[in-house]
Amino acid sequence: MYGLIGKMTAQPGKRSALTEILVKGIVGMPGCVSYVVADDPTDADVIWITEVWESKEAHAASLQLPSVRDAITKGRPLIAGMERVAETAPVGGSGITPEK
Amino acid sequence: MYGLIGKMTAQPGKRSALTEILVKGIVGMPGCVSYVVADDPTDADVIWITEVWESKEAHAASLQLPSVRDAITKGRPLIAGMERVAETAPVGGSGITPEK
Repeated sequence: MYGLIGKMTAQPGKRSALTEILVKGIVGMPGCVSYVVADDPTDADVIWITEVWESKEAHAASLQLPSVRDAITKGRPLIAGMERVAETAPVGGSGITPEK
Repeated sequence: MYGLIGKMTAQPGKRSALTEILVKGIVGMPGCVSYVVADDPTDADVIWITEVWESKEAHAASLQLPSVRDAITKGRPLIAGMERVAETAPVGGSGITPEK
């Protein structure tokens, strides 16, 4: 499995619009095991994104999906910054049954 | 929902022993939506833990479960450090169907 932990900062006041675009854009991505979009309670502009994929290739392929490209196009103007906190190798856990 | 992102550092050479304890200890926790234990590919001692819970209370209650207390007891000597990267409020995503 392949994982990503990212911290995104929305343009001021645009976080909820951005999370809505993200959540809608990630439905049904092949090879996606888990994709969680979360608000930071201590910073009104910050979003945490934690992802688990069957493979690094599945993640790369997702970026070419029409739904994801559309979300990127819509979301980009609302994004002030993005930081990749970690790239990971998930070894196990709970609630990470791969989607088929 | 309530989320946590944490970075744990194992004692040198003890990461796989520690992740095994963690993965076994977290099975069947009530209110746990997702709990992912992941190796850091760039640091042989680092583990990333990303959690989603139905509520903050469900997370707190899990710390009293015998299986979790046992994992904490076994794992503690193998832990060199722990950093809470973020406490989050998940707003949605994929693969986060709550366990009942």
